[in-house]
Amino acid sequence: MATIDLNSDVGESYGNWTFGDDAAIFTSVSSANVACGFHAGDPSGIRATCEAAVAAGVVIGAHPAYRDLAGFGRRFMDVAPKELIDDVIYQIGALEALARSVGGQVRYVKPHGALYNTIVHHEAQAKAVAKAILEVAPELPLLVLPNSEIQRAAEAAGLRTVTEAFADRAYTPDGTLVSRREPGSVLHDVDEIVQHVLRILDGEVKAIDGSRVTLEAHSICVHGDTPGAVEMAAKIREAITASGVDIASFA
Amino acid sequence: MATIDLNSDVGESYGNWTFGDDAAIFTSVSSANVACGFHAGDPSGIRATCEAAVAAGVVIGAHPAYRDLAGFGRRFMDVAPKELIDDVIYQIGALEALARSVGGQVRYVKPHGALYNTIVHHEAQAKAVAKAILEVAPELPLLVLPNSEIQRAAEAAGLRTVTEAFADRAYTPDGTLVSRREPGSVLHDVDEIVQHVLRILDGEVKAIDGSRVTLEAHSICVHGDTPGAVEMAAKIREAITASGVDIASFA
Amino acid sequence: MATIDLNSDVGESYGNWTFGDDAAIFTSVSSANVACGFHAGDPSGIRATCEAAVAAGVVIGAHPAYRDLAGFGRRFMDVAPKELIDDVIYQIGALEALARSVGGQVRYVKPHGALYNTIVHHEAQAKAVAKAILEVAPELPLLVLPNSEIQRAAEAAGLRTVTEAFADRAYTPDGTLVSRREPGSVLHDVDEIVQHVLRILDGEVKAIDGSRVTLEAHSICVHGDTPGAVEMAAKIREAITASGVDIASFA
Amino acid sequence: MATIDLNSDVGESYGNWTFGDDAAIFTSVSSANVACGFHAGDPSGIRATCEAAVAAGVVIGAHPAYRDLAGFGRRFMDVAPKELIDDVIYQIGALEALARSVGGQVRYVKPHGALYNTIVHHEAQAKAVAKAILEVAPELPLLVLPNSEIQRAAEAAGLRTVTEAFADRAYTPDGTLVSRREPGSVLHDVDEIVQHVLRILDGEVKAIDGSRVTLEAHSICVHGDTPGAVEMAAKIREAITASGVDIASFA
Repeated sequence: MATIDLNSDVGESYGNWTFGDDAAIFTSVSSANVACGFHAGDPSGIRATCEAAVAAGVVIGAHPAYRDLAGFGRRFMDVAPKELIDDVIYQIGALEALARSVGGQVRYVKPHGALYNTIVHHEAQAKAVAKAILEVAPELPLLVLPNSEIQRAAEAAGLRTVTEAFADRAYTPDGTLVSRREPGSVLHDVDEIVQHVLRILDGEVKAIDGSRVTLEAHSICVHGDTPGAVEMAAKIREAITASGVDIASFA
Repeated sequence: MATIDLNSDVGESYGNWTFGDDAAIFTSVSSANVACGFHAGDPSGIRATCEAAVAAGVVIGAHPAYRDLAGFGRRFMDVAPKELIDDVIYQIGALEALARSVGGQVRYVKPHGALYNTIVHHEAQAKAVAKAILEVAPELPLLVLPNSEIQRAAEAAGLRTVTEAFADRAYTPDGTLVSRREPGSVLHDVDEIVQHVLRILDGEVKAIDGSRVTLEAHSICVHGDTPGAVEMAAKIREAITASGVDIASFA
Repeated sequence: MATIDLNSDVGESYGNWTFGDDAAIFTSVSSANVACGFHAGDPSGIRATCEAAVAAGVVIGAHPAYRDLAGFGRRFMDVAPKELIDDVIYQIGALEALARSVGGQVRYVKPHGALYNTIVHHEAQAKAVAKAILEVAPELPLLVLPNSEIQRAAEAAGLRTVTEAFADRAYTPDGTLVSRREPGSVLHDVDEIVQHVLRILDGEVKAIDGSRVTLEAHSICVHGDTPGAVEMAAKIREAITASGVDIASFA
Repeated sequence: MATIDLNSDVGESYGNWTFGDDAAIFTSVSSANVACGFHAGDPSGIRATCEAAVAAGVVIGAHPAYRDLAGFGRRFMDVAPKELIDDVIYQIGALEALARSVGGQVRYVKPHGALYNTIVHHEAQAKAVAKAILEVAPELPLLVLPNSEIQRAAEAAGLRTVTEAFADRAYTPDGTLVSRREPGSVLHDVDEIVQHVLRILDGEVKAIDGSRVTLEAHSICVHGDTPGAVEMAAKIREAITASGVDIASFA
């Protein structure tokens, strides 16, 4: 693998509430999953994030979510597929306009939080997300978990998909994420995370039971919502670069 | 005057709550001011309205508002100009995407409710609205009240403006709208409204004190939020057509 | 059975959007499930409904819901039990204050929509709802579906429960509601509904497969959100009274 | 003056967004203005703040606001008095219930942000706030700026008022606050703030032009939304206590 993408969730402030340090994480990542207002992101905050992304040469992606500010989009909602399609279109359009106003553009889509997790296995919602992109911006690639319903739905719809892995999440022996509710689901140790990331570059992960699992990923998700996370992202970038792999957007 | 535009506020349902009968009003008007989600309009409702507009050959316009669902965008909010710019861009973009998904496009902008009323006289908010359009879609004309701050701000920004009059609103002797809080501000009688509209076609209105005021308007706003309003719009259309003036969009 | 309660969902307008005709339904029912602002109900609308209930001698109950205006509280949300407890307390308190301001008081609780349906079978959310009432108003009875998780949780918590049946919903052979997604789940024919209600007074329902199921209910839920529904409620009231059973609140 | 109250805005987190350090500020203040959900404060966050206040022996007050999460309640809204009454009642009730669930109670009211500033001079909204308290909890005192419309409205309504001053805000020669938009409106220097507070204890402030203004205040508002602010509050407490004045709630 000659290049890999690093992506991170950004634009997640809301009005008076700040969250993460987007400018800082943009020194490490190549792709910005920008909140679209349903789980986080007021228009002025979204715009400021888009401006910072453009200035840093980071590619802007849409990060649509369930309509759930109080829950930060982290709670499953049983939204009817028809409504989910329109919710996703609305969010992509809103971000497109704000990105355009600062000389940027939306170049991929990655659903957020509970929506992301749901469309790994929920066929109807997965198809709805794919249909939304097909209807509004079929040229946009979609960041997906490998072997997920959303990957299948997107490919069936003729969309381009890009698989991703998570820098700080433990995997099950069958290659899915260990639920955040389980102990050991989130990695915290720098060395462990760096090893985890380097293995991903080699096309595999060590699962939580110690077994090795093949995992093809063209992007790696890192966090930027705490000072520690920003520093971690910088170390991940450094380790990847040191291993001879370039960090670059897939878009 | 050979042609005049008729515009109406639509897309103002929200989830389980319905408001107005968009399909019915589309048999009378040429331009649809479509809610963008801040004062009304959930994504699926907005989309359904766009679909109906496309089917009826009615031109879609963006109807951005203050972020105030509980107040239906009818309460002045002292939003900072910088935030207002971004709120308007966000809304226009969201509508653009939903319109696009059904084969339509946003072809003009008309602010809603208290925002509309505020930018008649509030220079900073008027400039913010003009700047929003300039930044995101400078080709879109803006529907304005004649002699308003927003008309001045839009023209100074190089935007095209289109003046409008209201079919059922009384005017002051200096050509502004009588406040809704005043008695007689809203006309209810069919014949009176039809006479009012026909005078507008001739470039003037009879003010509330009986005086005649010159008023250049290229669009007339009609309501569609009650069965009576839909019927009224049909009568207005009929009277205009009977007078030899065609009804057609300005966009 | 000498008396039965009739309950109906009310207070479900929101700002400029009206829903149902609360004053009309109050001529038929004895208990008002008043929206608390999360799925519907702005404070002024809630208050107006409380005033109408007080004037009509109808008992006020709290009708808490998931925080989901766009979905009218009809979409399951995977809210953490700890948060659900506090969401329910918040809503009950808000309604208590508005009821108190017009001389009324909250005298029971009945969860709304998807929350109601979820706590029939979702043990953790059922326990959360019971705990909320226990912590904030343990004297309030809870309207429940018989044989539900919420009935068990409430009784385990020492709360009083009152079982209810639905006037216009079909039942399965094991006494639960037929899902709204199934054909025949909602009854529409007046005579059928009246027969259904009279059977409930006798402690049973005819299930969708024709079998008879024992069903103990001390309240019957009727709808008031359409003119037809209000008329139906009046007919149900008439039929019950004609059968010699009084309509009266359980609270 | 033998005792003075110190109050601070708290409970202003929202879901995933944290704001301020309530437990830290509770080591300095005697009164907690707890957000009620309209400008900030999700139910679980409000409850956690109430629990911390009860544990620290800090008195709980309601901090109602305009319905404006995106603007943190800091933007004037032209809410109709009738609706404002009900918005305030709703918020007080919601907080009452959450406070009660942790063994606390609401013992005063202090409006937030733009609402606070508006009712200094806006008679109709001031009367609405007073009427809300009168209708729902007439025993509660109201924290007010001296010589304000809200003080007059509250006293005319028979409510108890308690005047307050601001530890870090500059005053005009006529005893009102210098607008935040003016240079020098907010004091930052520790010594200057401490001197300002000690003068308040003596019944006066030094205005921005150097003149001395009589100012009767029974409570002083301090901030707790940054680490620096928490430290400042501790120093203010220390200076007050060192001067021989006790810090105690007025409620």
